[in-house]
Formats: sequence, C-alpha cells, structure tokens
Amino acid sequence: MSPEQSKPTGVNAITASNTTAPTQLLQLNGQSYAYRRFGRGSGLPLLFLQHFTGTLDNWDPAVTDPLAADREVILLDNAGVGRSTGEVPTTIAGMAQHALAFLGGLGIKTCDVLGYSLGGMVALQMVQDRSSTFRRLILVGSAPRGGEDIMHLEKPSLAKRIQDPTNRGYDVLKKIFFTASPASQAAAEAFVGRLSQRKNDLDPASGPNVAGAQMAAFREWEKFSGERFAELRVIRQPALVVNGVNDEMIPIANSLRMSENLANAVLIGYPDAGHGSLFQYPESFTRHAANFLASNSESAAF
Amino acid sequence: MSPEQSKPTGVNAITASNTTAPTQLLQLNGQSYAYRRFGRGSGLPLLFLQHFTGTLDNWDPAVTDPLAADREVILLDNAGVGRSTGEVPTTIAGMAQHALAFLGGLGIKTCDVLGYSLGGMVALQMVQDRSSTFRRLILVGSAPRGGEDIMHLEKPSLAKRIQDPTNRGYDVLKKIFFTASPASQAAAEAFVGRLSQRKNDLDPASGPNVAGAQMAAFREWEKFSGERFAELRVIRQPALVVNGVNDEMIPIANSLRMSENLANAVLIGYPDAGHGSLFQYPESFTRHAANFLASNSESAAF
Repeated sequence: MSPEQSKPTGVNAITASNTTAPTQLLQLNGQSYAYRRFGRGSGLPLLFLQHFTGTLDNWDPAVTDPLAADREVILLDNAGVGRSTGEVPTTIAGMAQHALAFLGGLGIKTCDVLGYSLGGMVALQMVQDRSSTFRRLILVGSAPRGGEDIMHLEKPSLAKRIQDPTNRGYDVLKKIFFTASPASQAAAEAFVGRLSQRKNDLDPASGPNVAGAQMAAFREWEKFSGERFAELRVIRQPALVVNGVNDEMIPIANSLRMSENLANAVLIGYPDAGHGSLFQYPESFTRHAANFLASNSESAAF
Repeated sequence: MSPEQSKPTGVNAITASNTTAPTQLLQLNGQSYAYRRFGRGSGLPLLFLQHFTGTLDNWDPAVTDPLAADREVILLDNAGVGRSTGEVPTTIAGMAQHALAFLGGLGIKTCDVLGYSLGGMVALQMVQDRSSTFRRLILVGSAPRGGEDIMHLEKPSLAKRIQDPTNRGYDVLKKIFFTASPASQAAAEAFVGRLSQRKNDLDPASGPNVAGAQMAAFREWEKFSGERFAELRVIRQPALVVNGVNDEMIPIANSLRMSENLANAVLIGYPDAGHGSLFQYPESFTRHAANFLASNSESAAF
C-alpha cells in the first residue's frame, strides 16, 4: 500500500493484539467457550467467526488489531474447537446456536460480525436466526446456503497442495490460502510470520474430528430446498462481501451470488488472491472494513 | 454517505466542473474532436470514455468534479458523437483508434483512463493497442471481448422501460440506469438534476445513426476467437472494475470475468444498483476511485 493513501477511519492507537491477548473461558450451560476479547473504541463489538479447522491462533493480528483500534473485537472458538469444550456440530445451524448462546452469555445485545469462510456461513445463519442482534456483516471467502463448490478439498487442484508431505503446520496455509504468484507467496510468508509471533497460551491444533464434523456441515450447507437464495433476500443489514478473485476453496461466484441476493451488500474482489484475501491485503482489507463499519448509512455503500 | 466517513484522497478544493467547463475542439487529421478538460493537481490526466449514445453532457459532475480535484480530467466525444465530426465506428477497435489519436493530438504521453460501459470496452482495446500510454484503468459497467448479454435492449425487461412513451430525454436514464427501489429512484432523480444544471454550450443528443453504429460495435465485441479472455491476461496495469450488482444492461458477471482474467484488478459491486452505479453512489465511487488512482503500489489493491 502506498503511504499517501488514507488511513482507516480508526483514530485510536492499536493498544491490544491477538499476539498477546489472553485467552478467556466463558462457562455456560455446562459448556466452556474459549475466546479472546480486546480493543476499545466507540464502535459496536465485532465478533470474529473462524474458518475450517481454524482456532483463535489463526486470526492474523494484521486483520484483528487495526479493527480493534475502534471497537472491541471478540474472537471465538466454536464448540469443540481449540479450548472450547463440547462436540463440533455437523451443521452450520448447530454452530450458529452455540455462537448466539455465547453472545448471550457475554451479555452482548447488539454487535457487528465478521465471518470468514465457514464463519461467514455461521454469521448468515445467526442473522437469520436472530436478526435484531446484528447491525452490519462482513463475509469473507464465504458462500450462501445452496452455494457451489464449497470446500471440495478432494479436487485435484487442492488435494495435491494439501497432501504435499513437505507442508507442515502453518505452511499448508501458504499453499491453499494464497496463489502461486511470487507476490502472493511473499504475502503468505508474512502472514505465517505474523501468526507465529504468538508464543504462549496457544490453542491445540484441530484434529480429524473437527475437520470431519465441519466438512459434514459444508456438505449440508450446499443443499437447498425451495427458491434458491430466498433466505438471503430477507436480510436487510448492510453487508460487505469480500473474496479473492482466484479462490479455489470457495470460488468468488459464491460471493457474487450473495451480493446479488442480499438486499444491501457491497462486493469487493481482491486481485491475484485465493481464499486468504484478507490476510494477503490486510491494510486494504482493514481500511475498507473499518470504513464500512464506521458508516451509519442505510446503504452498505461506503 | 455518513458524514464521519473518510474524505477522498483529494486535498484540493473543487474548482472546476463539468457543469461549467467550456467545450473545446481539437482539429486533427481533417477531423474535429469535441472535449472538455478541467481540474488540476499532481495526478496524471484521467481520460473519461462515455457510454452508449452518451455525450459530454452525460457525465455527472458528482463523478467528474471530485476526481478533477487532484488531476486534469478529459472528457471526450468520440468520432461522430456530440460535436465531434466523422463517422461513428462500428467496432470498438475503430473507436479506440480515434481516442488514441486524440490523446496524441493533445500531446499526452501517459494517463489514467476511466471507461464506462461502451467506454470501458474502448479503454481495454486502447490498453491492448498501446499499453505504454496507460498507468491505471477504471472500468465501470463494462464487459470484456467475448462477454455475455451486452446491451441487449431488445430484452423484454429493458425494452418495456426504454419504449415507455412517458420517458423523455434524461428520464429514460432513471429507468434503465437505476433499480426500481425508492432509494435508487431517489438517486436517479438527483442524478438527472445534476445533469440538468448545465444550461449552455450543450452537445446535440445522439440520434439513431450513433445508436446503430455503437450497437453494431457491441455485437462485434461479443464475438471472440481462440482462448476466451486471453487478451485480458496480458494487461498488467492495475485495474478497478466496478458494477451494480443488479445491472441488466451489462450484467456484473462480465465484471467478474474481467477481474478473474485481468492480471491485477480489484472488483467492487454496488448494492441495489443497475448500470449507473457510479451515478447512484458518486461519493463512494469517487472516494474509491481517488484512492485507487492515488496509489503507486504495484498491486491494484488500495
């Protein structure tokens, strides 16, 4: 990003970070939810909902921290993920119920939500289930119910990258969240470097049970009955829909369908970017997201 | 737009306007090109290329003037349109030749270009023909060669709005550039009001000969040979691709194809917006466009 560009709307200094924020536990209904909550400012709290197998440690501080300069951000491990107890639901609806219960447990009546990939689907379901809780939505690399080609990791183009035995830990993310271009791979390296800055109080990595249940939820989410995308048209909240234009995990066609069928959504596509577009362009993404969240316009246009 | 949002990068006051800028004529190769040139600042000149049957008077001052706060903007009547002499070419390639000759006649070696609808196609062709002239491209409501459903005014959904005898002059634009929603129609009213502020030194409206030749150019542009969209992949300039998510004249699928196949393009889709998205959200559009143009990053992301 060039230095002459405008700053995010954020006027407060960054004083808290996902690199250092302590993990907290909320006890509720016999269940324990792991979360991190940091930042301050005049904005509504912003709930972050995470991608397939991701934990609290998979949130890039270059995305969370600038947004925490104007509001509290709340990162959640859904049930059965990271240090949250319970079973991983096998439906998006089940995950949405947990996340709504969690918000209730924190006493949060109104908030904004940023859902990434799987988390965007959970966000859409939460808005359908309890619309009045949500003011504005950010949906990144996600898909509507009835979307197409959602997380088919068995596709040859993805399978060969995931199964490469030289990929370990975060390294696999460099191959599947970014494109093969030198610029995208340089951004991937920087992203993994930022995740690796957190050294203590780490979540356990997700195992096959998390992956299996979440994959079942994707398969169920691809199904639809009745008029396709009809449930999107009743969502009136301003939405910002973001995707890499070369996303092979959840193709941008899904984001186009969301922006066409949501009543009030801006679509942004990032160049030379795959599933991890928000991590490839964190300065641009957080500038757009902050301006979108700062707006009180009835329109999503910002 | 809410007042707390960030301003465009433009730091200079708006001192010139398409409402008042005089029309000039450039004599070149036995031809006369009508144009307006106004604004100042450190940015490269920005060439505006107009939509189907549009003249200099169809450029919304709410779009041209904020961009003229940081650079010269140059609005062109292509050959045979408005007060430019000559025949309207029946191909995009012919229009691109005229526009390149015009830039040469003004002595402009390097510039940015904003092409809207038909003008975006001409811009793409100009970049293919003389890449070194162009630094950054903005393509609004446009389509690549081989695009789909480009300006089929005979479609029932469009034909009934165009042929409504109660529509006169600019009023037809309210029906075809905007959606039927109250918010979009209010924006349409404001748009037409802004166009109507210019009272003198007006272009003649385009007649059937302009429409016929430009329509022939659309039909030729829909054809392709060889690998579809291959010519987009060699364009390296950063591009900003913009469309209304509900555009029936040139559907946003065309903008998606451009952003997927151009090497370096950001896509923005505007909510509840048809073909005239830039006129529906001029504050948002000019803020994004100004930030995009102000960037010197290698990436289109801004």
